[in-house]
Amino acid sequence: MDIYEALYTTRAMRRVKPDPVPSDVVHRILDAAIRAPSGGNSQEWRFMMVDDPALVAQIAPLYRECIDMLWAAIYNDRLEAAAADPEAAESKQMMAIKKSVDYAAENFEDYPLLMFAFDRGDSTGGSIFPAVWSAQLAARAEGVGSSLTSVLMIKGDEVPNLLGVPADEDWKMACMVPMGYPKGRWGVAKRAPAHEVAYLNRWGSGLGAEINEPLWSAS
Amino acid sequence: MDIYEALYTTRAMRRVKPDPVPSDVVHRILDAAIRAPSGGNSQEWRFMMVDDPALVAQIAPLYRECIDMLWAAIYNDRLEAAAADPEAAESKQMMAIKKSVDYAAENFEDYPLLMFAFDRGDSTGGSIFPAVWSAQLAARAEGVGSSLTSVLMIKGDEVPNLLGVPADEDWKMACMVPMGYPKGRWGVAKRAPAHEVAYLNRWGSGLGAEINEPLWSAS
Repeated sequence: MDIYEALYTTRAMRRVKPDPVPSDVVHRILDAAIRAPSGGNSQEWRFMMVDDPALVAQIAPLYRECIDMLWAAIYNDRLEAAAADPEAAESKQMMAIKKSVDYAAENFEDYPLLMFAFDRGDSTGGSIFPAVWSAQLAARAEGVGSSLTSVLMIKGDEVPNLLGVPADEDWKMACMVPMGYPKGRWGVAKRAPAHEVAYLNRWGSGLGAEINEPLWSAS
Repeated sequence: MDIYEALYTTRAMRRVKPDPVPSDVVHRILDAAIRAPSGGNSQEWRFMMVDDPALVAQIAPLYRECIDMLWAAIYNDRLEAAAADPEAAESKQMMAIKKSVDYAAENFEDYPLLMFAFDRGDSTGGSIFPAVWSAQLAARAEGVGSSLTSVLMIKGDEVPNLLGVPADEDWKMACMVPMGYPKGRWGVAKRAPAHEVAYLNRWGSGLGAEINEPLWSAS
């Protein structure tokens, strides 16, 4: 797969089939992930792959509790704004995200594979998220959908304890990435264009050009 | 370019030529970056591209001061260990990194392009580093080398102030990514293999297989 196709079409894919992800695919995903850079090439990362349905089922209720808290606390304002003005573009986007995440919560036991990423000694995330995103891009190339969430951090050490993470080694859970073969279609996600979020030499300067259509498209 | 070639060969490339990166290449890099996911699709990011040599020259001494502090404080122990046992594999790796970073510091004014990434409202880095890494992968596809550093954060708001970042909008500088056409060759970086840093269902379990050679190689 072309690099640009992967970069443009790897969107959050939460609706997946329960079909297992074969171990050779898992190995290609992980081997790609560990090629990513990390500060001082320290590679202070660990990746926990969970494909045991019993363990997925133990994590499911914790995930659902976190999602409940997400809507009730962190996204409360955006959800109220969406309810007040349901026809606004932002409202529709918020409700689409909620529907997709609620699907993930309700069907969590169907995920055939969860990837957890841990790091230590890095306060910025700059030494773990390139590797996580590489895993998601490699998964895309393998036809495997994924999505990234840090929501389980709400529950502190509960999930790390379930996974057997040693308490005295300073590992910090960076995120969980559920994976599986998608039910839906790949596509280019809608985003605010680059010229609205990128500047040249001076904050607020614009970019000297407008990029109103994606510069890559399926041909 | 194949996605796997990009994932395997995008290593930190600090030795670059002063040749400018054309604006159409910069636009493709940015348009790929903004396709990345962010929490709640919030896209709370800004990308500042700096190609003005006068501004690069203002940043250069600040970067050099940060690198001096990096060696004197954060990497002090690793450098002392390397000096004490120069033939050890870890020592050689540390000295190679120091040489590469010192080159960047000494020749900073030669960088034709710096990308700064800013985010807000995300404490994990999970909503900015996928976009930054997408920019680096797109750059790789364009033949442009890059490296990621968060070292300028040592100097607090000095660089954001230089770039004109408004103080009252909560933007946090995530990293700087110097870019340019490489002097050296692309290659697969050496890493601890996946089976040493990834587990299946239980921490410390191993992966059920050894992956001693990269699963992708230039053919």
